[in-house]
Amino acid sequence: MLTKLQDQSSGPSNRIKIDLLIRNAWILTLDDNRTEYNPGFVAIKDKRILSVGELGNCSNFVAKKEIDGTDCLVLPGLVNTHTHAAMTPFRGYADDMKLQEWLFKHIFPAESQYINKNSVYWGTKLAIAEMIRNGITTFADGYFFVGAVAKAVKECGIRAVVGQGILDYPTPDTPDPKNNFTTAQNFIESYSSFSDRVYPSIFCHSPYACGQQTLIRMKELTSCCNALYQIHLSETKNEVKEFEDKHHTRPTLYLKDLGVLDDLTLVAHAVWVNEKEIEVLSKHGVGISHVVSSNMKLAAGVAPLGQFLDAELKVGLGTDGCASNNRLDLLRDADLSAKLHKVWRGDPMVVPAVSMVEIITRRGAQAIGLGHEIGSIEKGKVADIIVVELHKPHLTPLYDPYSHLVYSAKGSDVRDVVIAGEVVMRDREILTFDEREVIGEVRSISNKIRSQQI
Amino acid sequence: MLTKLQDQSSGPSNRIKIDLLIRNAWILTLDDNRTEYNPGFVAIKDKRILSVGELGNCSNFVAKKEIDGTDCLVLPGLVNTHTHAAMTPFRGYADDMKLQEWLFKHIFPAESQYINKNSVYWGTKLAIAEMIRNGITTFADGYFFVGAVAKAVKECGIRAVVGQGILDYPTPDTPDPKNNFTTAQNFIESYSSFSDRVYPSIFCHSPYACGQQTLIRMKELTSCCNALYQIHLSETKNEVKEFEDKHHTRPTLYLKDLGVLDDLTLVAHAVWVNEKEIEVLSKHGVGISHVVSSNMKLAAGVAPLGQFLDAELKVGLGTDGCASNNRLDLLRDADLSAKLHKVWRGDPMVVPAVSMVEIITRRGAQAIGLGHEIGSIEKGKVADIIVVELHKPHLTPLYDPYSHLVYSAKGSDVRDVVIAGEVVMRDREILTFDEREVIGEVRSISNKIRSQQI
Repeated sequence: MLTKLQDQSSGPSNRIKIDLLIRNAWILTLDDNRTEYNPGFVAIKDKRILSVGELGNCSNFVAKKEIDGTDCLVLPGLVNTHTHAAMTPFRGYADDMKLQEWLFKHIFPAESQYINKNSVYWGTKLAIAEMIRNGITTFADGYFFVGAVAKAVKECGIRAVVGQGILDYPTPDTPDPKNNFTTAQNFIESYSSFSDRVYPSIFCHSPYACGQQTLIRMKELTSCCNALYQIHLSETKNEVKEFEDKHHTRPTLYLKDLGVLDDLTLVAHAVWVNEKEIEVLSKHGVGISHVVSSNMKLAAGVAPLGQFLDAELKVGLGTDGCASNNRLDLLRDADLSAKLHKVWRGDPMVVPAVSMVEIITRRGAQAIGLGHEIGSIEKGKVADIIVVELHKPHLTPLYDPYSHLVYSAKGSDVRDVVIAGEVVMRDREILTFDEREVIGEVRSISNKIRSQQI
Repeated sequence: MLTKLQDQSSGPSNRIKIDLLIRNAWILTLDDNRTEYNPGFVAIKDKRILSVGELGNCSNFVAKKEIDGTDCLVLPGLVNTHTHAAMTPFRGYADDMKLQEWLFKHIFPAESQYINKNSVYWGTKLAIAEMIRNGITTFADGYFFVGAVAKAVKECGIRAVVGQGILDYPTPDTPDPKNNFTTAQNFIESYSSFSDRVYPSIFCHSPYACGQQTLIRMKELTSCCNALYQIHLSETKNEVKEFEDKHHTRPTLYLKDLGVLDDLTLVAHAVWVNEKEIEVLSKHGVGISHVVSSNMKLAAGVAPLGQFLDAELKVGLGTDGCASNNRLDLLRDADLSAKLHKVWRGDPMVVPAVSMVEIITRRGAQAIGLGHEIGSIEKGKVADIIVVELHKPHLTPLYDPYSHLVYSAKGSDVRDVVIAGEVVMRDREILTFDEREVIGEVRSISNKIRSQQI
């Protein structure tokens, strides 16, 4: 009787219908206990994870689609906590120069001339193609013409916090800063139900480029609708010095006093923050984006990542835009960051591989206010999942999957990408849009830029 | 008449027969003037470059094989100036720990137990597969059971300086150090005509692990046959301090006084060398391998690469073995190095991309004593050439090819690899050996290591 019952329970009639089953893989859930299943499975239904566990427990499911993960690692999609996606047309446009020269003589003039709805739309799509190929399933963005950004995000099927860029100076989409609030309010209101993968947000440029009233009013706006408040903080030593000379306080304390620091605030860079500031950021539950590659290339400095980890801060990795970090590749930047902090502190034990994998997944998700939805493979969470192929020379042999992800793997090892249960890339082919068309469009834009290069 | 003559001169009967023609690509020759042809061609005959130039000038050639380089960069094969290829079975075996613990508690015991002819042969082949895939066409190696290394090199069709590892301690292939000289002499003599892509060499471990007599006798041996003399130099601060305490001089000056520094000496690491030592290295024409990734991961320190470049030293990049740098990928390490030195010196202008491309090609070739044969695409040089595909999201758009190679490209963008005129990889498929077999063999070796992990 027992046998008969078992047969019935696993028979076709009683099996649970799901949308997607990933199986046979080594699953790194990145949950609180860093649970692993090897071999394991993930069952996905209605965009969410219905079940995850040992392979032997998956026979109850019957799936519309399956992904065989033999000889693969499966982990949560990577979270890019800071970028300006639409800047891809400026990739490699100006390198190896001082930040002020780079910004004021090259990037700002180029942006004012070439950034419009069209270039933002195609530039963002190109960034998305690159990010998906590198296993990034969510990014936190700040830029202009954000309607075009949101449209690109929706069409490509990636997940993004889309931040309306705000400065108290003329910008490509808001030439008169008096209209900042209207621009921001319109975006938040119009796009709050635009797509379940688009999260409207405000990106105030920085404490030095936005006045007190702007900083405060924008926080009120984001607080009303639980949106993320993003801001650049203390990227360079000079910037902090000038700020202190003017305001007689550190930037973090200034923001705290304005009341804009809370658990829906994300600060990007945070290179030049002292112990007191780290304490304030921690106390207020602020998320941090560690933008290591851009900080290195522009010689901005080295953020105290070890101290962020010691303080258990919500810290993720951010690529920055393509003008300062020519690649949108968190696996490359994870390796870069893990190694930089070791040699910087003279201690090979700081920022071990497993911490770095947490930073590019669950901690990153927490940093941008989406920790309840993404960042780990757990029942009930949205199904943002990547499959990394292992049968390759540079991934042989395998002792520790976390070490492998940080020190050995590359973005191009990501074979399949699932976002909200949708297979967005399969066997390195992007299924949701035509990336050749995107490459062609951005090449056209760059041809114009090149012909008038500053 | 003129038309008729022209027709005749370019007609089939008068065309020059060659083995391989690469055309339509953007050619970076990396010659003295950094000449570029876009679009250009490279004509290859009898393993060497017969001609390189503007595309319009290639109609005189008729080739047995052709590679269409449309939308590609073509450049000299990359030169890995320092590795221990056979250590791939220890990739990721022990990470995130202090150098002394890593070396003495994990790596040395594991080597003494698992290193033999078989593991060296398969481990080296795996490293070669990975290196070819990353565009590396030449590597300078130091290890044990070098006959097995040379065999793997020859079978795979890559180019390598194969160094017999020498220590005044028992080693896997020479348990009694009294036999060091015989081991070394036998190798040099037996393998000097083994293959035109294998260059026998001696790799003395270091000034602290080899006595004076060993250091001197090995130099005499290499000098006799114009072989490269390789040695680790000043990798860690502690090592240099202990050396100074014992010998009352700096390691570089000690080696100079022994007479082992000349233009066929390659020093690896050179992290802790002062100005005086840089001057000595420069004066004696010594080559340097900058092993940035391994130095960062083990927190050894940051070599003064900017000063090496200022002194016009022959400096290349080295990956080190897979135990300390889990990837054999010079494009990744070029990005790492360019960025590290910027943030370390607080100057975004040091080590610009173009210098870094020179370091992984022509300067690297010079560093290992092969500058006359490889490192640039010039008439008469051996045809070691790679083709990098550009039609990809992360390589769009393109303003500067050198910036692209360092800051945007990855090893997986290398589409074709030509070594001594032989197409070793075509469309990402290795043609000279079965890499799946190699992966399987190394997995078997690693299974044994894992089951007894220390």
